[in-house]
Amino acid sequence: MRMYDIILKKRDGGELTRQEIAYFISGYVSGEIPDYQASALCMAIYYQGMSEAETVALTDCMAHSGDTVDLSRFGSLTVDKHSTGGVGDKTTLIVAPIVASLGGKLAKMSGRGLGHTGGTVDKLESIPGYRVTMEREEFLQQVEDVGVAVIGQSGNLTPADKKLYALRDVTATVDSIPLITSSIMSKKLAAGSHNIVLDVKVGSGAFMKTLGDARTLARNMVEIGKACGRNIAALITDMSRPLGHAIGNELEVREAVEILRGMKKGDLYEVCVALATEMIILLKNISQEEAETLVVGAIESGAAFEKMKEWVSAQGGDALWLEKAPAKPAHIVPIISPVDGYITAMDTAAIGSAAVILGAGRSKKDDPIDYSAGITAAVKTGDRVEKGMTLGTLYTNEEAAIQPATERYLSALSFGENPPESNKLIYEIIR
Amino acid sequence: MRMYDIILKKRDGGELTRQEIAYFISGYVSGEIPDYQASALCMAIYYQGMSEAETVALTDCMAHSGDTVDLSRFGSLTVDKHSTGGVGDKTTLIVAPIVASLGGKLAKMSGRGLGHTGGTVDKLESIPGYRVTMEREEFLQQVEDVGVAVIGQSGNLTPADKKLYALRDVTATVDSIPLITSSIMSKKLAAGSHNIVLDVKVGSGAFMKTLGDARTLARNMVEIGKACGRNIAALITDMSRPLGHAIGNELEVREAVEILRGMKKGDLYEVCVALATEMIILLKNISQEEAETLVVGAIESGAAFEKMKEWVSAQGGDALWLEKAPAKPAHIVPIISPVDGYITAMDTAAIGSAAVILGAGRSKKDDPIDYSAGITAAVKTGDRVEKGMTLGTLYTNEEAAIQPATERYLSALSFGENPPESNKLIYEIIR
Repeated sequence: MRMYDIILKKRDGGELTRQEIAYFISGYVSGEIPDYQASALCMAIYYQGMSEAETVALTDCMAHSGDTVDLSRFGSLTVDKHSTGGVGDKTTLIVAPIVASLGGKLAKMSGRGLGHTGGTVDKLESIPGYRVTMEREEFLQQVEDVGVAVIGQSGNLTPADKKLYALRDVTATVDSIPLITSSIMSKKLAAGSHNIVLDVKVGSGAFMKTLGDARTLARNMVEIGKACGRNIAALITDMSRPLGHAIGNELEVREAVEILRGMKKGDLYEVCVALATEMIILLKNISQEEAETLVVGAIESGAAFEKMKEWVSAQGGDALWLEKAPAKPAHIVPIISPVDGYITAMDTAAIGSAAVILGAGRSKKDDPIDYSAGITAAVKTGDRVEKGMTLGTLYTNEEAAIQPATERYLSALSFGENPPESNKLIYEIIR
Repeated sequence: MRMYDIILKKRDGGELTRQEIAYFISGYVSGEIPDYQASALCMAIYYQGMSEAETVALTDCMAHSGDTVDLSRFGSLTVDKHSTGGVGDKTTLIVAPIVASLGGKLAKMSGRGLGHTGGTVDKLESIPGYRVTMEREEFLQQVEDVGVAVIGQSGNLTPADKKLYALRDVTATVDSIPLITSSIMSKKLAAGSHNIVLDVKVGSGAFMKTLGDARTLARNMVEIGKACGRNIAALITDMSRPLGHAIGNELEVREAVEILRGMKKGDLYEVCVALATEMIILLKNISQEEAETLVVGAIESGAAFEKMKEWVSAQGGDALWLEKAPAKPAHIVPIISPVDGYITAMDTAAIGSAAVILGAGRSKKDDPIDYSAGITAAVKTGDRVEKGMTLGTLYTNEEAAIQPATERYLSALSFGENPPESNKLIYEIIR
């Protein structure tokens, strides 16, 4: 078998066999197949697409390109949640303890933030003492005892995806549905959970800008997950504005706590209930209504918040801190509305990047993070504002960041005389 | 400027600016732009194509990526000929002295053979004493004195093309019309001739298998040549069978001599007259009829063959050898027809590879060559054959090569009861 022939076949619209895909992935990971052939193949895949069989084979080969997490001791109780990424998306912090309090087993490895999107691991690290690295056995023991453990990515999971994603990122071959599908799903397969709920974001702050693209990706991932023997569903949810009001690590943990303590409703609450409901449906094979009743009950009874404290304590974090007042950075500055009118749209990615300017995220992989930095949005798309009113608040320790972050935030807002047509919050559930 | 953005723009069907193309070529030659980005761009170009303006810019940037040959001292008398490559294509050996005898200046750098196609430099090296390397000034002086000099590629001409072609060759991005056009035309521009005649081969032994593809390539190259200020024309000629009868280095020199001495007519003669006529039209701006009269006269008067001897002598070759009997290798073996019928088709590339088996060419870049090895085809497509008749003759010093070469040659022939529709020899002239 020759890599040249594989590129040529795909270039001309042929369907690659599992053997050909396995040859590519193992050769690429070992270094025998060079980057320049892999990037040519990725570009050919960008144009020619991949069949379901090809995508399944690619996903499976990447999932098995390195270590995998063995969660078999938990039987079918394991459940994972994956978001395609957005701004203000702290759903894992809320959904994980809800589902764990209802008997689910969440052995979760999460990522760090990069660019305009935040990462769950960074958010958790803003909790004093919280350890994001654990030995494998300790990690699994906590899942068994507490029902939930969330750590950073560790071990040599899906090295093929790591290498290929880094290559795609510099060769303009990221936005290919089969390549995105196999990248996400290979990691989910390697992470070992039997039940998987995907949260596919759509809108100005998401990777998928249109509902059509989001739907295609969601359907593809569900299809591939099922073909690989997993119990899987996907929600398509709105990311045309930040989710909730807080953006920034500690601010987001505080907002998650408010939801779990039943102190706050709204879009974030609704999306979390929907995600947790879907996870419970997969786990317990019950109706949506029954599942939702359990989820809402877990919040209202306080069981979910108790579970969060138990989880944070188990990982070395200060559970009491969760109910304390937030840290105050040196500068807390309101953003003032320059006009009267309605907010008709938010460039959510730009809002995420305003938070990065304040210190809440990373432009480059190894940039330091200021956990107390961030933004709270007082109003969002559809809200009526008046000139001089506070649109939101900036939190930062960098005085020099205030002006550029304010400008970036204001430039991300569109104002108009009439309210916009309202966006749905949850567009679709694909099972 | 970022290479990523250039790939993305082309991927999405945008037109690259001259600045973007210049950035790519200079960065790629310097090594700042890695192979994996260049191969992704080539694959995007494969699918999206390039506009005339883009192809001109790419050609021009590649032509100026290294040294160029300054032929300005010869004014508009310089003329070059380029064939896209075929089997038995010894036209340079014939056309160059014809045109030089009529006042043209041919400062030619030719290639070596690889795979099923031969190379002019290898053919010339079969002449005892012939030197294929010369200092630049000596080379130009010979062009001035004799009218023709043919050497191997020397100096750092079009390093961008060398590097990019090697990459395209292993990433399935060779067969893209704009990339082929810029590869060929950049070398022609760097070689410095004002007048250029292209011989675009079409058929089983050529890179272009269909007339449509050959026509597109020929038109593209003529368009780009004109846009770069050259006087240029292209012929589309048949390569669905070997050109002439001899395949192999010394055998081909002998056949060229026969043509120049007026001892042989047929397809090779006709193609050479057509090519030389086109070169004379460009040089002298006269009618096709007038030019052809000059060309035929140069052969019939013996002036062209005298020019060949003068040229060979000037480069250290033994001119008397040209009229001697050919060297006899250890084995001269007839290929016997297994059937009665007509030859309906020839897989010309396979015939070229049969000659490689005998020692006449290279499978790999540094393989040695046996100059006396090769094949003479006694009959070609359209000829009637009888069982037991000699189809051709193998020449080799390798006894072990006889059987596989015979099998390869026979498998390359198709026989039938009726003669095939005759192929044209010269399909089109594009001016």
